[in-house]
Amino acid sequence: MAPPRDTSDTTSTERVREPIVSPYMPKYPDPMSNVSKFKIIESTLREGEQFANAFFSTEKKVEIAKALDEMGVDYLELTSPAASEQSYNDCKTISNLGLNAKILTHTRCHMDDAKLAIETGVDGVDVVIGTSSYLREFSHGKDMEYITSKAIEVITYIKEQGKEVRFSTEDSFRSDLVDLLSIYKAVDKIGVNRVGIADTVGCANPRQVYELVRTLRSVVNCDIECHFHNDTGCAIANAYAALEAGATHIDTSVLGIGERNGITPLGGLLARMYTADKAYVKNKYDLTKIRDVENIVADAVDVTVPFNNYITGYCAFTHKAGIHAKAILNNPSTYEILDPTDFNQSRYVSIGHRLTGWNAVKNRIEQLKLGLTDEDAKQVTQKIKELADIRPLSLENVDVLLRQYHSAKETSSHLSILQSVVNPDQLA
Amino acid sequence: MAPPRDTSDTTSTERVREPIVSPYMPKYPDPMSNVSKFKIIESTLREGEQFANAFFSTEKKVEIAKALDEMGVDYLELTSPAASEQSYNDCKTISNLGLNAKILTHTRCHMDDAKLAIETGVDGVDVVIGTSSYLREFSHGKDMEYITSKAIEVITYIKEQGKEVRFSTEDSFRSDLVDLLSIYKAVDKIGVNRVGIADTVGCANPRQVYELVRTLRSVVNCDIECHFHNDTGCAIANAYAALEAGATHIDTSVLGIGERNGITPLGGLLARMYTADKAYVKNKYDLTKIRDVENIVADAVDVTVPFNNYITGYCAFTHKAGIHAKAILNNPSTYEILDPTDFNQSRYVSIGHRLTGWNAVKNRIEQLKLGLTDEDAKQVTQKIKELADIRPLSLENVDVLLRQYHSAKETSSHLSILQSVVNPDQLA
Repeated sequence: MAPPRDTSDTTSTERVREPIVSPYMPKYPDPMSNVSKFKIIESTLREGEQFANAFFSTEKKVEIAKALDEMGVDYLELTSPAASEQSYNDCKTISNLGLNAKILTHTRCHMDDAKLAIETGVDGVDVVIGTSSYLREFSHGKDMEYITSKAIEVITYIKEQGKEVRFSTEDSFRSDLVDLLSIYKAVDKIGVNRVGIADTVGCANPRQVYELVRTLRSVVNCDIECHFHNDTGCAIANAYAALEAGATHIDTSVLGIGERNGITPLGGLLARMYTADKAYVKNKYDLTKIRDVENIVADAVDVTVPFNNYITGYCAFTHKAGIHAKAILNNPSTYEILDPTDFNQSRYVSIGHRLTGWNAVKNRIEQLKLGLTDEDAKQVTQKIKELADIRPLSLENVDVLLRQYHSAKETSSHLSILQSVVNPDQLA
Repeated sequence: MAPPRDTSDTTSTERVREPIVSPYMPKYPDPMSNVSKFKIIESTLREGEQFANAFFSTEKKVEIAKALDEMGVDYLELTSPAASEQSYNDCKTISNLGLNAKILTHTRCHMDDAKLAIETGVDGVDVVIGTSSYLREFSHGKDMEYITSKAIEVITYIKEQGKEVRFSTEDSFRSDLVDLLSIYKAVDKIGVNRVGIADTVGCANPRQVYELVRTLRSVVNCDIECHFHNDTGCAIANAYAALEAGATHIDTSVLGIGERNGITPLGGLLARMYTADKAYVKNKYDLTKIRDVENIVADAVDVTVPFNNYITGYCAFTHKAGIHAKAILNNPSTYEILDPTDFNQSRYVSIGHRLTGWNAVKNRIEQLKLGLTDEDAKQVTQKIKELADIRPLSLENVDVLLRQYHSAKETSSHLSILQSVVNPDQLA
């Protein structure tokens, strides 16, 4: 969905009625969709701390919190103050930083935890309890009546302290639908700010998510937050489907770090949402800082940014096949929906390999101002393919080849040029 | 959707009519869904060769082809024989290996390429042409009438040679819907084996995919293949939505390698489909070989398997938060939808950190046969949290702590035990 149209231009009423034209989105916007007005609850300092490698010192937490705040995320979610003494103190420290982002902490649905949370000065408390039959049997063993009465007690208390409160179930997609809707309806009635749906085990798929959120949207009036694990590769797509269905808040972490292989990654979600509404995403979040934030976190948890990471993976903007390279050089939109410059990244068109094409080679000839013809470009391309069948050529290798071809052409007859071009062993 | 039910057990007709019960799937199966009967077109040797780092020697291609064949993939797709001389020879070599997988090559919609492909002895040809207005303007500049007549000529020729033929558009999600359906209808009429939809730029989302495939399913009788890029994180979810809508074949590559950040990864797709129909996936594919195949490819293209990779990422089966660890120890299904042993992987419950819980610690006490009480476990857990606030403890550190607690208890009064436990500096 496109951003709300500027209706101040009333010179043409017909224009206002024009359908939104985007190759990625439905022609007519769905008023319940929030793909153009979502908020991010950044949980690197909570879910991310559950990542196997994560051990954040207070200083590191502060650094991460500030970096995320500068990027413009709406909320920061912190580990429960009940987890340990440092966790408690960190909630206090980060709440006192004076960030723009609201500070939340994530606690069990328990009065003791809620009281600790309030003491730390956070802006809100994200309360969670498991509702699936699996969790009720094997985790806390509590029934729905108990869960509901506990939820009401805890929510009422937190609201009385003037704080924002979210109530989330855990493992929502394996919970009984009627149980879920009943408890959400009950907590909505007493004024909870948000209800949360969590795919704790990473089993949900986008059409399921859409249906559940759409149903929930018709049951509650409060905001809807969603939390998706990525065990089966749907964490970003599920977040998108949830927003389409009317969810308002999405949980993320930097590089997706969290329990097991993690949750919806911040960068990946921004890539997805940029595709849906570039203006909203660019205006609200500082996309040029993604790489810095990822580097801070990758360093803190001692992982390498995946080679295929969204936006910042080292090949995210590399084009290789000849047909792609040709089109990209004519118009980057042909094979690129993310403009690398918006993310402070750059494009690279790779040409020294067997899949290369003469249009890509011609582009390089023009960059080097060598003034060769199309026929020349085709001949050199053939030579590059022959050499690259033996081993790939660096851009420097290709440039040597192009320059040699160029000088050979200046000094000798056209037909003998290719014989004079160096063999691959000389290119090393 | 669950696998076709075994109706040989006719002792109870009521049982046959029972809805399929799975927490992950719709209660009633959709007859058009193919989540329980899909095929994989493995394109590491075509799309994967378009990955920035990929340069495969013939020997490496043969090694990868054999490993994928052993895993049970249905098809192997190879780089066009028109790309270079080695590409041509590699098609011949791999076609002659006598693999169970059918061998395809991927060519432009052009008679010259089709003839070369047939010469190599492949089982089928995957023909592709761009149909989006972007590509028609900036890539090949051809109109739909030309594209259709070319497609019919090439398909007819390949079929006459007794080979399987697929016709795919490129950048299908930015193509005009009527153009798309018209050309698919035309090629279906002349007996193409499969039509292909390609999200060449990675812009599509699952609900769009579902709608397009469902529409196409009502237009053509042939199989439907889908190819999804992962620029915005939907490649796995889109594949799943396509199968739900009636697609029959999904393109994958090992670790998802391909242009830019790649396509639907083989391992990730298998994780997703396992969740939908474990029996089908386990019977058809050798899931224990995923890690080996990934290691071969990662090594060949000089990348590290991402820390958060599906199934094989080093933390995919690591559980950390106390509440998770407790439930996992009671019943792994609580927080795990993939059984690690099915993939020849193992589970790890991490306990030496500030998010730990006493049930997880108690489990370790039992593994060590130390015979401590619940009250003991709670006290040691408190100590672990204190120490882990300073720095995380290895499992060895935790074990030292538990054993010391145990001997202290045997030799001294209960109350003084915690004083005797080593301080963290001694744990190094």
